[in-house]
Amino acid sequence: MRDTNRTWLLAQRPDGRPDEESFEFVERDVPEPGDDEVLVRTLYMSVDPYMRGRMRDAESYADPWEVGDPMQAGVVGEVVESNHPRWSEGDVVTGNLHWADYSVAGGHRLVGVDPDVAPVSTALGVLGMPGRTAYFGLLDVGEPKPGDTVVVSGGAGAVGSVVGQIAKEAGCRVVGVAGAPEKTEWLTDELGFDAALNYKEDDVHGALREAAPDGVDVYFDNVGGPVTDAVFRELNVRSRVVVCGQIALYNATEVPTGPRKLTQLIQTRARVEGVLVSDYEDRFDEATERLARWVGDGTVQYRETTTEGLENAPDAFLGLFDGVNVGKQVVQVAERD
Amino acid sequence: MRDTNRTWLLAQRPDGRPDEESFEFVERDVPEPGDDEVLVRTLYMSVDPYMRGRMRDAESYADPWEVGDPMQAGVVGEVVESNHPRWSEGDVVTGNLHWADYSVAGGHRLVGVDPDVAPVSTALGVLGMPGRTAYFGLLDVGEPKPGDTVVVSGGAGAVGSVVGQIAKEAGCRVVGVAGAPEKTEWLTDELGFDAALNYKEDDVHGALREAAPDGVDVYFDNVGGPVTDAVFRELNVRSRVVVCGQIALYNATEVPTGPRKLTQLIQTRARVEGVLVSDYEDRFDEATERLARWVGDGTVQYRETTTEGLENAPDAFLGLFDGVNVGKQVVQVAERD
Repeated sequence: MRDTNRTWLLAQRPDGRPDEESFEFVERDVPEPGDDEVLVRTLYMSVDPYMRGRMRDAESYADPWEVGDPMQAGVVGEVVESNHPRWSEGDVVTGNLHWADYSVAGGHRLVGVDPDVAPVSTALGVLGMPGRTAYFGLLDVGEPKPGDTVVVSGGAGAVGSVVGQIAKEAGCRVVGVAGAPEKTEWLTDELGFDAALNYKEDDVHGALREAAPDGVDVYFDNVGGPVTDAVFRELNVRSRVVVCGQIALYNATEVPTGPRKLTQLIQTRARVEGVLVSDYEDRFDEATERLARWVGDGTVQYRETTTEGLENAPDAFLGLFDGVNVGKQVVQVAERD
Repeated sequence: MRDTNRTWLLAQRPDGRPDEESFEFVERDVPEPGDDEVLVRTLYMSVDPYMRGRMRDAESYADPWEVGDPMQAGVVGEVVESNHPRWSEGDVVTGNLHWADYSVAGGHRLVGVDPDVAPVSTALGVLGMPGRTAYFGLLDVGEPKPGDTVVVSGGAGAVGSVVGQIAKEAGCRVVGVAGAPEKTEWLTDELGFDAALNYKEDDVHGALREAAPDGVDVYFDNVGGPVTDAVFRELNVRSRVVVCGQIALYNATEVPTGPRKLTQLIQTRARVEGVLVSDYEDRFDEATERLARWVGDGTVQYRETTTEGLENAPDAFLGLFDGVNVGKQVVQVAERD
């Protein structure tokens, strides 16, 4: 066990793309758990695009992070010391904790992770928040029907790759949009997507018309920007657009502009709706159990891109905006004992 | 009875705002009805913003009008000659006919108008397509709940003025956006809107924050553009945006651009959906009967702006884009016998 607690703080609010000035790496004392609290040693921490929003000082669905406070993340860790009746030393748990070697949390804020089901890191990915986002966003908001054409941007990401596989299971034709040949090949050759476009190389609109000759019934959008503009042109009557992420816009320094789209919604009566996984908190178990079964029987495959070392967490986070990751990006902070 | 049939043709597709070159006024023979057809003498014809879309050569929910063909419109007229068992000379009917003194139509394509219920021109407005659009758009797509704040752009128009009054009846706080003091005063002083903003004079976003201090639960959009941008900034969590019209954009010569809005949809999980009244064809009677009752008991008031003379129909149409009309814009072509 380390005798200090390395911790990443939000050093200042980024203007545009975060950089090294945005983060500060400090060494602190390992905290002590109080009543009903648990000390957790981080094994894996998650970096996710939504974190960019929390670094901003703006109203949103959650309060912004304060400058000088630790950066927060989904963490999978091992209980080191427990003052909570539910947890014992050695338990593997997950929760929203810190970019740090250790975090203290109220025991009720943690969820157990069963290491026998799948590698524990999956609690941050396919069996965690991204997997559940895919599940509820596609099934509850997107409402796919067999025979529908489903297009997913960020198709090789932690959410998109699961969306596409669930859509295949639901009987849909699935087209993924991604930004590298390695990714599009993964989608078509391993995950069973019917087609995949490389938005960095293809004429997206033209390629989409070929890949989705009957138009688009469900568009699951993780990206926004010009890819989304192209897909909107192919929306079918009564189609559904699930707005899950807009990573192409998160580092913008001015209000991003683009073609106005509402007239198309009159023409198509498409429904455009945002999804936020926390709205489905009372149904998390449903999603997690279903996803675990699908992972177990091979229906849903996953990949993780693992960055080694807490010191590299900011780089792993920034890599998301460059599309470095295939599947879920995690940071391995320590090995299990 | 006239012995010629004055008719407006689509002379050429407009590039931007239609002008006198877009229309051609010709004199033709009065047509003769064939089997099961009816000859209708136009009393009133409607001009509506959607017609701008039909003048365009682009895919939409309906086929574009052909150059050289008569312009089409909702018409209220009198049966002059009938070869259809349902209709007799002197019946007042409505249907989608021509910008002309006379039209011939299959009898099954006409709907009867009862002159005892309300002035027959209302079959083009509050008891016609605009009234039904308001009814289904607000109630089925907007899903207002008592206590909701409903904002309607084009609030003094044929659709918007009805939307606001139905929303009041549904127990909502109603804010109208319009473009002239005469209009905003009508909305607040006569129709019972809680507030009305003049987008040509007020700082719309600031005025909206005052008029809708609890945010916006339903936005019924007839206009688009900067007014819509301002309202989107005030959308509440799980709010609904009904996209009915985008008149501010219809004459654009290039793809209109504006602030991208999808990130706000993640933050709010607002649902944005287009409405097209023809989707509700099997429920038209429900809407018409309800609206007739509301008009009868004063729950829903209406105004019409009447332009005299078929020769002035293009001016009446173009006036829509300048907001000349208060309430429903109609053209009176002839008096009832």
